[in-house]
Amino acid sequence: MTLLLTNALLLPCTPDMPVIENGWVQVDGETITATGSGAPPAIPGAETIDLSGDILMPGMVNPHCHIAMTLFRGLGEDVDDRLYRYVLPMERKFVTPEMVRAGTALGVYEMISSGVTAVADMYYFETEVGRVIDQAGMRGVVGQTIADFNPPDHKTIDEGFALTEELVAEFRGHSRVTPSIAPHAPYSTDIAVMNRVARWADDNPDVPLQIHLAEMDSEMEWCAKNHGLRPVEVVEKAGLLRKGLICAHCLHVNESDIEKMAHARVCVAHNARSNAKAGRGIAPVEAMRRAGLPVGIGTDGPMSGNGLDLFAQFGPVTMFQKLLGHSRKPMPVVEVIRMATIEGATVLGMDDRIGSIEPGKQADLVHIDLSAPRLQPIYDPYATLVYSTLADDVRDVMVAGKWLMRDREVLTLERKKVMRDALQVASAFKAEMKRIDAAT
Amino acid sequence: MTLLLTNALLLPCTPDMPVIENGWVQVDGETITATGSGAPPAIPGAETIDLSGDILMPGMVNPHCHIAMTLFRGLGEDVDDRLYRYVLPMERKFVTPEMVRAGTALGVYEMISSGVTAVADMYYFETEVGRVIDQAGMRGVVGQTIADFNPPDHKTIDEGFALTEELVAEFRGHSRVTPSIAPHAPYSTDIAVMNRVARWADDNPDVPLQIHLAEMDSEMEWCAKNHGLRPVEVVEKAGLLRKGLICAHCLHVNESDIEKMAHARVCVAHNARSNAKAGRGIAPVEAMRRAGLPVGIGTDGPMSGNGLDLFAQFGPVTMFQKLLGHSRKPMPVVEVIRMATIEGATVLGMDDRIGSIEPGKQADLVHIDLSAPRLQPIYDPYATLVYSTLADDVRDVMVAGKWLMRDREVLTLERKKVMRDALQVASAFKAEMKRIDAAT
Repeated sequence: MTLLLTNALLLPCTPDMPVIENGWVQVDGETITATGSGAPPAIPGAETIDLSGDILMPGMVNPHCHIAMTLFRGLGEDVDDRLYRYVLPMERKFVTPEMVRAGTALGVYEMISSGVTAVADMYYFETEVGRVIDQAGMRGVVGQTIADFNPPDHKTIDEGFALTEELVAEFRGHSRVTPSIAPHAPYSTDIAVMNRVARWADDNPDVPLQIHLAEMDSEMEWCAKNHGLRPVEVVEKAGLLRKGLICAHCLHVNESDIEKMAHARVCVAHNARSNAKAGRGIAPVEAMRRAGLPVGIGTDGPMSGNGLDLFAQFGPVTMFQKLLGHSRKPMPVVEVIRMATIEGATVLGMDDRIGSIEPGKQADLVHIDLSAPRLQPIYDPYATLVYSTLADDVRDVMVAGKWLMRDREVLTLERKKVMRDALQVASAFKAEMKRIDAAT
Repeated sequence: MTLLLTNALLLPCTPDMPVIENGWVQVDGETITATGSGAPPAIPGAETIDLSGDILMPGMVNPHCHIAMTLFRGLGEDVDDRLYRYVLPMERKFVTPEMVRAGTALGVYEMISSGVTAVADMYYFETEVGRVIDQAGMRGVVGQTIADFNPPDHKTIDEGFALTEELVAEFRGHSRVTPSIAPHAPYSTDIAVMNRVARWADDNPDVPLQIHLAEMDSEMEWCAKNHGLRPVEVVEKAGLLRKGLICAHCLHVNESDIEKMAHARVCVAHNARSNAKAGRGIAPVEAMRRAGLPVGIGTDGPMSGNGLDLFAQFGPVTMFQKLLGHSRKPMPVVEVIRMATIEGATVLGMDDRIGSIEPGKQADLVHIDLSAPRLQPIYDPYATLVYSTLADDVRDVMVAGKWLMRDREVLTLERKKVMRDALQVASAFKAEMKRIDAAT
């Protein structure tokens, strides 16, 4: 079955980042088979959808997330010690396979609705995450967390590896769900454990690695005190600093760190809102990209960044670099969209398959409705996407040739059930927060 | 006619900033006559609207804007000298009464749609702005710009005052449109001209004053070089630093400036996105508020900030202060909403009439639909408003007891006509930008 999407303001996100007026895209099965502008080819029996001049762009990529934390969204705002005060105790108490399913479904609903078609997740009971993503038709790199701070799903590192093996067994070779392993962070996971992950990864080179890196002041101090090293150096010493490692945050990286990271060919997930909400600072994104590191735009978990919608990140991503550079020039709008699409795909190790609209790539496509008065006039569609477009402007979303959303209705998840399950699981959380507050 | 809005998650924005579950509000004519929680009063003949647990809050206030610049939105992004390269030349060429009408209508449409019910504007042909705001049923402080850089609507200062007198004659005593006078900025308006405005203001104490202040590095240098003073001191010397002066930006203010401003009882319009997009820096909002200065959340013109929706400002407003303070604590979510409502009303000099939901105040109300999965769960509605709510979640908007929007349909402006007029007027702008680029 051939599908023709015609009359689009086509942003293919190929290297030159062109803007193609009156563009068309041909999809056969899962795959983009041709693109062009002007009159589309006449293909007997093809279904044609006229996009009326609206934007058609690649599905967006969120390279760092803890999806199920949707259920903690907005809990304990503006409190400095929320990680140790609320997050870790509440995770220990409430994170179960059921919670992960409900929270992930709510988050996947939000991502599909806002045009995010691929995500790198890093949480607990990750096989559940993979199943929800699979059923919803999205694409995901699902990372089983490995940590020795007594996380919710493994009391020992052996148990953590057992969960990883289960995850890999279920999803290895899956076309959309890629199993991954995620040692938590250099401050929270012993260097011997990180080294064990590195040796496991040597035997499983098809399994992507993820880690939190150089995120917090306390992490810098911990690594200095315990290893006499910077976080990037600790990860290097553990044998983990290697091609394709998805490094989340990278806020506190200096020139020497960036050089090591570029030499090792790691990838970066930048989480602008999460870093700023915590008052932590601004990652040197321009410097990392100049060094050749691919940088994607992540949301972090919704307790840190509150949402999974990349449009809410775009303004901060460019504004923060402009503030750092004291100029309007850093991080131009077109570079923000490059990061959200093809560069994010590179971070996920999937740039051969997704991230741009080109013949041979998977048909992961997003249609943006431009009819809202707040979007007009449009002189530069990249500026429109970065500064004016809202999640609700996303009208249709396709992954691997299959519609996940049409006319703003998600087709692969039941909205009422998603909401009911989420609110039911979360119903005890507020009382627990109050109990913690009362007890301290 | 009595109207009862019932079953609301009521945020009245009174001094304690309470959250009232199952709240109700009674409106008679233009005025809020009673509020409460639980069962509403039984009033024969009253119309009752059940808000199903959704948020009901005061209409929001945008204290600094150049509304008609909607038509320049997204033009010339990421270029450092855009003010002198594009903005001023294009304004000289294109700003006409027709352009101001079309651009203002597009912006007013956007504000009503996003729950902004009162605005302070500062532009050219300001009588046209007042008329559009009046016809759309909004509330506005409309400021005729006075400047000696040959602005689009007056060749001489006498002409600028003549325009102001016309504006005042048309709107003095109007219940929703307040005429205002706006000397442009200390770097762009001679100190003698500012002093003439101050003397005019002595004779017209009911007319609010607006000015751009301490916004740019070049302004600091200009004031030092030409007056040996800081911008706040130049305005003070001109006799303009007085109670109620709306000072936009106030980015470069030190302790001494803040003390002078607080002593004079001026008001501040903070424009987080506009300041950051220009790479200019972060205004010391926390310090100004600690000194007792009321600070509202402005959008600036849509060429600088790209939109007129306050929800897009809330994240930056709190994140920037957290970055400045290197902590999660500065600018808590509840303070952001205070600034967007009652504190913004204080900046406009209207806190006796609007900005909170209390008996005796004007019925300027906003109903936020909470049904989107991306808003759930809700532990703290202030966090939901600051980090998760989008303009499109605004469902109904009332000003002075009259619905301006119902079920997301603006009732007082014709959407198709607004869009057609805006795009027609703006149709020549892109070519002019290309001409400027080619000529330089």
